[in-house]
Amino acid sequence: MDPESVAKAFVEHYYRTFDSNRAALGGLYQEGSMLTFEGDKIQGAPAIVAKISSLPFQQCAHAISTVDCQPSGPSGGMLVFASGSLQLGGEQHPLKFSQMFHLIPTPQGSFYVLNDIFRLNYA
Amino acid sequence: MDPESVAKAFVEHYYRTFDSNRAALGGLYQEGSMLTFEGDKIQGAPAIVAKISSLPFQQCAHAISTVDCQPSGPSGGMLVFASGSLQLGGEQHPLKFSQMFHLIPTPQGSFYVLNDIFRLNYA
Repeated sequence: MDPESVAKAFVEHYYRTFDSNRAALGGLYQEGSMLTFEGDKIQGAPAIVAKISSLPFQQCAHAISTVDCQPSGPSGGMLVFASGSLQLGGEQHPLKFSQMFHLIPTPQGSFYVLNDIFRLNYA
Repeated sequence: MDPESVAKAFVEHYYRTFDSNRAALGGLYQEGSMLTFEGDKIQGAPAIVAKISSLPFQQCAHAISTVDCQPSGPSGGMLVFASGSLQLGGEQHPLKFSQMFHLIPTPQGSFYVLNDIFRLNYA
């Protein structure tokens, strides 16, 4: 697959998993992974899953608007920048968000998330 | 300076330069630098400066809302994620934007921009 297709497939997989079974996102992170969520800094797969799982809503649905990607350097990493909207269960209006991921190749031919920064786009 | 202060200083410098003398941003990029601007992919400092200089407005003013940063790996790079609003000359309403930068240390003790992805936050 070309990088654009890899990035799009990753983003679709990420949000589909987020919306259906957040705890399963842990498999995408490793011990050195970092998440900055609305300014909160969290490190390591277990703490990242705990943070994502503790968000104060049960049902959510992400809709992706844009996916951009670039190679992050000579080591085969990829930067992915996604934007979209997030519909929370019981809320009338969706929230707009932007999120970036730094994907690092694994020896198994897949990727893990080293860097993850999420921000809601406040109006 | 701690990484947060470096990131904030970089973002302030970047947008101050953008708003006052866009062509001077060329000094922040190198030949391998990449810009994805609203989905357009541009590579190399000269082409990036040409793109930024050709944007169809003369006066603009960026206001920064948030700056997040994380180390991008063992090589001393830094990922910076900025959000804010952009007031164009002659326009009534500011545009919201999100932008990420991947900063790579230079032998001179400074940084250059390897990766740059910009998106307006459409409502």
